[in-house]
Amino acid sequence: MNPERDFLDGKKNALAKLQTAKKENKVDSGILPILKIINNSEDFYTSSSCFGRTVLLEIPIIGDKKEAKFLGKWHREIKINELLNAVKDAKSGQIWLLSQSPIIHIVAKTNNYADKILKTAIACGFKNSGLKSIGKKIVVEVCSTERLDTPIGKDGIVFCNKEHLELLTNISNEIINKSSSKLKKFEEKLRKDLYTYKTTN
Amino acid sequence: MNPERDFLDGKKNALAKLQTAKKENKVDSGILPILKIINNSEDFYTSSSCFGRTVLLEIPIIGDKKEAKFLGKWHREIKINELLNAVKDAKSGQIWLLSQSPIIHIVAKTNNYADKILKTAIACGFKNSGLKSIGKKIVVEVCSTERLDTPIGKDGIVFCNKEHLELLTNISNEIINKSSSKLKKFEEKLRKDLYTYKTTN
Repeated sequence: MNPERDFLDGKKNALAKLQTAKKENKVDSGILPILKIINNSEDFYTSSSCFGRTVLLEIPIIGDKKEAKFLGKWHREIKINELLNAVKDAKSGQIWLLSQSPIIHIVAKTNNYADKILKTAIACGFKNSGLKSIGKKIVVEVCSTERLDTPIGKDGIVFCNKEHLELLTNISNEIINKSSSKLKKFEEKLRKDLYTYKTTN
Repeated sequence: MNPERDFLDGKKNALAKLQTAKKENKVDSGILPILKIINNSEDFYTSSSCFGRTVLLEIPIIGDKKEAKFLGKWHREIKINELLNAVKDAKSGQIWLLSQSPIIHIVAKTNNYADKILKTAIACGFKNSGLKSIGKKIVVEVCSTERLDTPIGKDGIVFCNKEHLELLTNISNEIINKSSSKLKKFEEKLRKDLYTYKTTN
């Protein structure tokens, strides 16, 4: 077992996968600057990420993601009409509107570096962050608490009136905007900090 | 700095606080058996916990928990009438229905023990679990992914029709029941495992 070698191999694979995903337009463009900063540091790399999004899902049983079907997906603010258009494809099962804040998985070279970047993430407002693993691979999950998980209808029928849909879209948009500004803050902090982690170690 | 001494002091304080909280009926009774198992082990202690709950909140701005007001709180299944009764006290601000799965914070003596109990928690269905800190204090957060975070009205008015409230209460109750069975599974696993962690170390 050679942790340094494992880290370097893991990083090489992750960066190759990221390159492929970027070519296939599978990476949210808003998150690319922060991925670049993290991956440029020799003590970290990113293994997966999402900029944050609002999704409309058709889901047969709660938690049964395998059976879930995307009716709509937006990495930006939405309008009620977009929701109503997307929901037209709903047929059977619960209809959920979810707004999710950004999520980034960062692999750290040591527990010490993991602890540092975790504290930085929490200080930037990503209060739900934590370490997912400290075994062979040290993985930090950066994420926030704001979210919306709302069932809005069933079997193709939306139960919400216009006022309710307005409230839901407003909150969704608030989450996306708040997420975006937290991400900006984290990006700026990392731009400065990733050079000083070593010297203050 | 003496990590062993810090751990023992931390455990002494946490257990004293737990005793006081129990006397004041501030600990959810459903979670007591698992707290007992964890605290009986010499390598762990619990610092906070919640059995899982459904709450009705009045909240002025998303994320501004300081201003949030509890309209209702249940650690069990609920009925539509209970919701409608609780909502009568709503006056101004968004009204949210939240269903939250259990959450337990466990302090571990070493990173190695933390990693073991984290893996056990994930294997029992608490897939959102992670380590909140690996500095001076090693804290594992045990929690699950099922949740409902739904704005249901504004300024004292509920926007949902009866069908929608039925869907929401059914899902809330499903989350509470699922949580309870995951907790049971985790309890049984820990009852066996906490004795073998040491020998397989």
